Amino acid sequence: MLPFRFLRNLLLLSCMAATALSQTKPRARDLGVPFDGTPGMFNAITDIKGVEVGHTTLISGNGKLKVGQGPVRTGVTAILPRGKQSKDAVFGGWFTMNGNGEMTGTTWLEDSGFLDGPIMITNTHSVGVVRDAVIAWKVKQGEPDMEGYWWSLPVVAETWDGYLNDINGFHVKPEHVFHALDSAHSGPVDEGNVGGGTGMICNEFKGGIGTASRVLEAKQGGYTVGVLVQCNYGDREQLRIAGVPVGREIPEHPVWKNDTGSIIIVIATDAPLIPTQLKRVARRASLGLGRNGSYSGDGSGDIFVAFSTANAGAANPKGVRDLKMLPNDQINPIFLATVQATEEAVVNAMVAAETMTGVEDHTVIALPHDKLHEVLKKYNRLVK
Amino acid sequence: MLPFRFLRNLLLLSCMAATALSQTKPRARDLGVPFDGTPGMFNAITDIKGVEVGHTTLISGNGKLKVGQGPVRTGVTAILPRGKQSKDAVFGGWFTMNGNGEMTGTTWLEDSGFLDGPIMITNTHSVGVVRDAVIAWKVKQGEPDMEGYWWSLPVVAETWDGYLNDINGFHVKPEHVFHALDSAHSGPVDEGNVGGGTGMICNEFKGGIGTASRVLEAKQGGYTVGVLVQCNYGDREQLRIAGVPVGREIPEHPVWKNDTGSIIIVIATDAPLIPTQLKRVARRASLGLGRNGSYSGDGSGDIFVAFSTANAGAANPKGVRDLKMLPNDQINPIFLATVQATEEAVVNAMVAAETMTGVEDHTVIALPHDKLHEVLKKYNRLVK
Amino acid sequence: MLPFRFLRNLLLLSCMAATALSQTKPRARDLGVPFDGTPGMFNAITDIKGVEVGHTTLISGNGKLKVGQGPVRTGVTAILPRGKQSKDAVFGGWFTMNGNGEMTGTTWLEDSGFLDGPIMITNTHSVGVVRDAVIAWKVKQGEPDMEGYWWSLPVVAETWDGYLNDINGFHVKPEHVFHALDSAHSGPVDEGNVGGGTGMICNEFKGGIGTASRVLEAKQGGYTVGVLVQCNYGDREQLRIAGVPVGREIPEHPVWKNDTGSIIIVIATDAPLIPTQLKRVARRASLGLGRNGSYSGDGSGDIFVAFSTANAGAANPKGVRDLKMLPNDQINPIFLATVQATEEAVVNAMVAAETMTGVEDHTVIALPHDKLHEVLKKYNRLVK
Amino acid sequence: MLPFRFLRNLLLLSCMAATALSQTKPRARDLGVPFDGTPGMFNAITDIKGVEVGHTTLISGNGKLKVGQGPVRTGVTAILPRGKQSKDAVFGGWFTMNGNGEMTGTTWLEDSGFLDGPIMITNTHSVGVVRDAVIAWKVKQGEPDMEGYWWSLPVVAETWDGYLNDINGFHVKPEHVFHALDSAHSGPVDEGNVGGGTGMICNEFKGGIGTASRVLEAKQGGYTVGVLVQCNYGDREQLRIAGVPVGREIPEHPVWKNDTGSIIIVIATDAPLIPTQLKRVARRASLGLGRNGSYSGDGSGDIFVAFSTANAGAANPKGVRDLKMLPNDQINPIFLATVQATEEAVVNAMVAAETMTGVEDHTVIALPHDKLHEVLKKYNRLVK
Repeated sequence: MLPFRFLRNLLLLSCMAATALSQTKPRARDLGVPFDGTPGMFNAITDIKGVEVGHTTLISGNGKLKVGQGPVRTGVTAILPRGKQSKDAVFGGWFTMNGNGEMTGTTWLEDSGFLDGPIMITNTHSVGVVRDAVIAWKVKQGEPDMEGYWWSLPVVAETWDGYLNDINGFHVKPEHVFHALDSAHSGPVDEGNVGGGTGMICNEFKGGIGTASRVLEAKQGGYTVGVLVQCNYGDREQLRIAGVPVGREIPEHPVWKNDTGSIIIVIATDAPLIPTQLKRVARRASLGLGRNGSYSGDGSGDIFVAFSTANAGAANPKGVRDLKMLPNDQINPIFLATVQATEEAVVNAMVAAETMTGVEDHTVIALPHDKLHEVLKKYNRLVK
Repeated sequence: MLPFRFLRNLLLLSCMAATALSQTKPRARDLGVPFDGTPGMFNAITDIKGVEVGHTTLISGNGKLKVGQGPVRTGVTAILPRGKQSKDAVFGGWFTMNGNGEMTGTTWLEDSGFLDGPIMITNTHSVGVVRDAVIAWKVKQGEPDMEGYWWSLPVVAETWDGYLNDINGFHVKPEHVFHALDSAHSGPVDEGNVGGGTGMICNEFKGGIGTASRVLEAKQGGYTVGVLVQCNYGDREQLRIAGVPVGREIPEHPVWKNDTGSIIIVIATDAPLIPTQLKRVARRASLGLGRNGSYSGDGSGDIFVAFSTANAGAANPKGVRDLKMLPNDQINPIFLATVQATEEAVVNAMVAAETMTGVEDHTVIALPHDKLHEVLKKYNRLVK
Repeated sequence: MLPFRFLRNLLLLSCMAATALSQTKPRARDLGVPFDGTPGMFNAITDIKGVEVGHTTLISGNGKLKVGQGPVRTGVTAILPRGKQSKDAVFGGWFTMNGNGEMTGTTWLEDSGFLDGPIMITNTHSVGVVRDAVIAWKVKQGEPDMEGYWWSLPVVAETWDGYLNDINGFHVKPEHVFHALDSAHSGPVDEGNVGGGTGMICNEFKGGIGTASRVLEAKQGGYTVGVLVQCNYGDREQLRIAGVPVGREIPEHPVWKNDTGSIIIVIATDAPLIPTQLKRVARRASLGLGRNGSYSGDGSGDIFVAFSTANAGAANPKGVRDLKMLPNDQINPIFLATVQATEEAVVNAMVAAETMTGVEDHTVIALPHDKLHEVLKKYNRLVK
Repeated sequence: MLPFRFLRNLLLLSCMAATALSQTKPRARDLGVPFDGTPGMFNAITDIKGVEVGHTTLISGNGKLKVGQGPVRTGVTAILPRGKQSKDAVFGGWFTMNGNGEMTGTTWLEDSGFLDGPIMITNTHSVGVVRDAVIAWKVKQGEPDMEGYWWSLPVVAETWDGYLNDINGFHVKPEHVFHALDSAHSGPVDEGNVGGGTGMICNEFKGGIGTASRVLEAKQGGYTVGVLVQCNYGDREQLRIAGVPVGREIPEHPVWKNDTGSIIIVIATDAPLIPTQLKRVARRASLGLGRNGSYSGDGSGDIFVAFSTANAGAANPKGVRDLKMLPNDQINPIFLATVQATEEAVVNAMVAAETMTGVEDHTVIALPHDKLHEVLKKYNRLVK
């Protein structure tokens, strides 16, 4: 007889999958964009068991910028490697392709090999409030040890949304951080103009949050790799989708002349990788961006972080820890999956995002689905 | 005839020097601790022209810890490389000896080679509020460009004061940040229980802010190197002062069994160094810590940043910039000065700090001046 | 009247250009592959004034492998940043996308910011002989100072040619190194099965040496960026050319199942970049590889080095040096040119390389030009 | 009954210990230099089980320098992490305090986390011959796999001995490398003017090879940390021994005015550390140098590598590997032991080295044991 727990989980999964399927919003592959590899159930970072994602989206006001009053087009996104209930750190690694950005907590991540707590993404000028609010949230969860020898170095990253958002108005507040954390869940992940991605711009189309995943073949270990991006980078001129020069073919409504944005990329896997290996995985996100045409401009904060949910308990300070490690000789499918999922997550962000008007009535158009379809067809790259 | 401006400056300097001389608090060398090299006028980071330092010190409440109510023993320290009036970035470099800490803004510092704005130091759980407040302060100063394509990635570092301070009460507020910035000044620098160093512990004695400087000989270029530390690291057992095993000789009132603290070290110079060279300078702070007996424990955030006030205008985005560079072959005196000034700044912090009682009536004693004197004598290292 | 020197140089240039034009071997763009940007006169790293390239190509023997006797399919390539006559070091920076390889001399390059002497590329097991031979060559040139306080830390990189070459036979000798150095010249650069690239394999086609360049517009400073690759990486399956999935469309004669190769990328520019900036440039080569479909496999030594021929005399140990620096805000065209020239240099290597049979009669086919033409046409990407 | 194997090993150990004890050459602690911590049986890197060390020492000729003919004062030292018989790689990490030197193989060490094969140390201009000879030695050992997809990236480091040795004569030959490897053994390690250290200079005294070890208490895991240095760095003026300004007290026979040397430091442990942790351990060697007064001059190649002999089989490419990891929270005793053993190994090198005369009759004096004794007494630091 199947245990109740199994049945319940099966039902839950079916339910979430149904939700995923019933999503009316098409994703990149629904539009016929060809991608390699096999995605997981949700084609999302949450395909890695335990990973939860939550968003707080702040949209209010219109027209003229009044610093402190809006218009507001911003938010916070929380990625919890082992979900809200766990206080167990994960192994992690990070990499910077171009450093015009911030990801706090990386000095200790680099040296300890551990990523302890959620990864938060918000706008450039709200990193501080989000960082301290994560500590406050942990304190509320009862994290500090009895003697009080406890401190926290949260991981908070950002991209700049000042073209659409009153970024110097500091509209993100601690309660928005708590909400993103408390509402984080597994299953489908909202994409586009949500959470930290609300006011973002990608290749001069509306950008924001995107996600994708890959499942390796059984003989490769059957591991899953998931990617979530907050996508705010890029010149239209350089944009390639599935290798096709889509940016040049859709030159309408450009935003600016130079690459001024950024991209934060979060990579999750259940493969048993140690920190050295996760750093290598994080570096591969660059190659996904390369496929999409990025040259990682000077103004870009292209910062990537990778973690593994394997090796639960590795951070336990007692005794000698038992670990599992995938040999380096078997890591290529993880690398390739990272490149592929990054490539797709960026396109998913643009496909999901909708045209937005923000401060000073600046408008950024969504990537037009019909034209994308046309261009792919012109270059014989449309998946029938 | 001497111009008025010169006379005024001379008077100002004399006045500040007099203040320095009239300080009733002795510093390490006043107690007969032998140090090599020649310090600048104030034996402080402010001996580099343009550098200003400001502190906000928060001390209130006693006894039982009530999170959010105190006791409070914390603060903020601001170091402004070119003073409050300048918006000109400096070349910088950084290094981590042990990464259990935070210094925001380092990803861009590393990649751009520039340090743009003040360096702030506070307690571990107030890094966020300080970071965003620096942006707010810059906005108030009218920093953003006309088109609004402006963002800021402030450099904010920390050490942990939770043994004496209600660190989870988040007592540092934006106005404390503004005050530290607005009150920053050249001349003598307050040391010990002030600013970000208020609640810090160093080698199980009371620690905090310390500073020192070195002036090179004319044939070495006559440059000045200044160091400021927020000193919160170390085992008593390992403490050496001027090579003497002072820690073992003064075993009274230990605080803990393991190195759990951190040290932030800021190095300033007027030597024309480019970013690659400043990274090398930052790394030398390790050797100063080595002299004092540190082994840079796992719990330590030993993070160092160096900048040069030379090459004003290098950050100007227009044209091709003209720079000056000291050849690598001439850099040794800068390296040695960094080691020496770091060694002394740490001792200055302990000498200046006074016994403090904080949360839960935890008490940390000051390094007893008379015993230090005795121990140095015992080992024939006392400067007569 | 035009000075004689100018006329002579003009004639020399015309002559070399004529040679370039009279090359019967087509290059990638001759086959209709679309690339962005404007190449220099030779579309080669030698478009940067002063840069010289020399090759020694070793091909002998056939059939069965007899270690020490062959077959031999290997060589050495020398890139001299300022030509054979100059002893003036250049500013440099380096980056590793995947570290399964060797580039000696990088520790000092990283710390000093200078690249002193030639960059050599050979096979994996001949790095040592090449390195010491560079020192011997320098000694022969009279490099050591009078007092003898001189040492050299040559930059020598490698990729693995053991599938075609008797790599454990150590066939590269000091005289081959001297020849590559002594025969280095400006003007057109031989590509394909030459020098260090003789026995290399790229995306399971015959690989080797490739080069390309870009000239920026006058308003961007008019600088030149040149790239030279020793190309030995990649899965056929992943190969994209100009975004087109060429590898899948030409599946014939695969070599192996996994990415086991490597790529060394050398980037030269005359833009006045300081070491921090050159490190950023080196990192951009990754994005060029990304465009071509690389995922930088575990077995790959993807190591990149960039240098600038500007700032002659910066390495002079006397006095304070005067430098020029391009502001970071103007660096984007350099980044983009690096990505574009890397993308093209890799394809040039494959286009130039010819089918080769080596040890144990292993045969690696050249990228078939006609099929490439066909595939580009199929995907509507052929330049007419 | 005790098994034969155990008895045999016991006898072997006794024999080696007897050898150690019967050494007529005193070591630093025999002269009364105070050091902290508990050394292992041999107070050497070979106290870590499996580690073997071999030297080839080349001394010949006198007087005038004739390049290629001598005088010769050089050699090679081999450190085999798991001994000659094992082909099993170890986890490793490395760090550069100052990069004016070479350690080949570090790019792959950094990225893979593994150190595969011996660590070799020689003079600056013989790194190449040593590197390729290690490959040849491996080929002779039958290392290459059946299909021939095998390559090697040896770890070879150096310091500069050109003040005493005809360094441009390239006197190290492959057979010297083979001898150092083949003669490597466990037990006592020769120190001073041997192997790679033959012609080295340390703090303007004769330097060379030195070693030391520490054994942790049982409650700290009982692990051993061993250090071996090839010591060639430092100004006399800055030299501290046990915190005492020994250099200034023995100013006789200085060699030069500036720090021009280097130090290679190899750290071994049997503690189960993963690569991230070994990198941290390597970094701690800096603090040992700091204790001895180093400022890591511009001309210095201060390069450190650490490895762990635990986790045998971790490099096996098959399956998923089982690892052990010491928690970061328990790593402090390893850090402290590294600092202490580095501090002592440097002094051991100087104590063991004997006055040497080399090229052009340059003479470098040994650290005079009697004067060292006197100075320690003067500063009340002599161990009775």
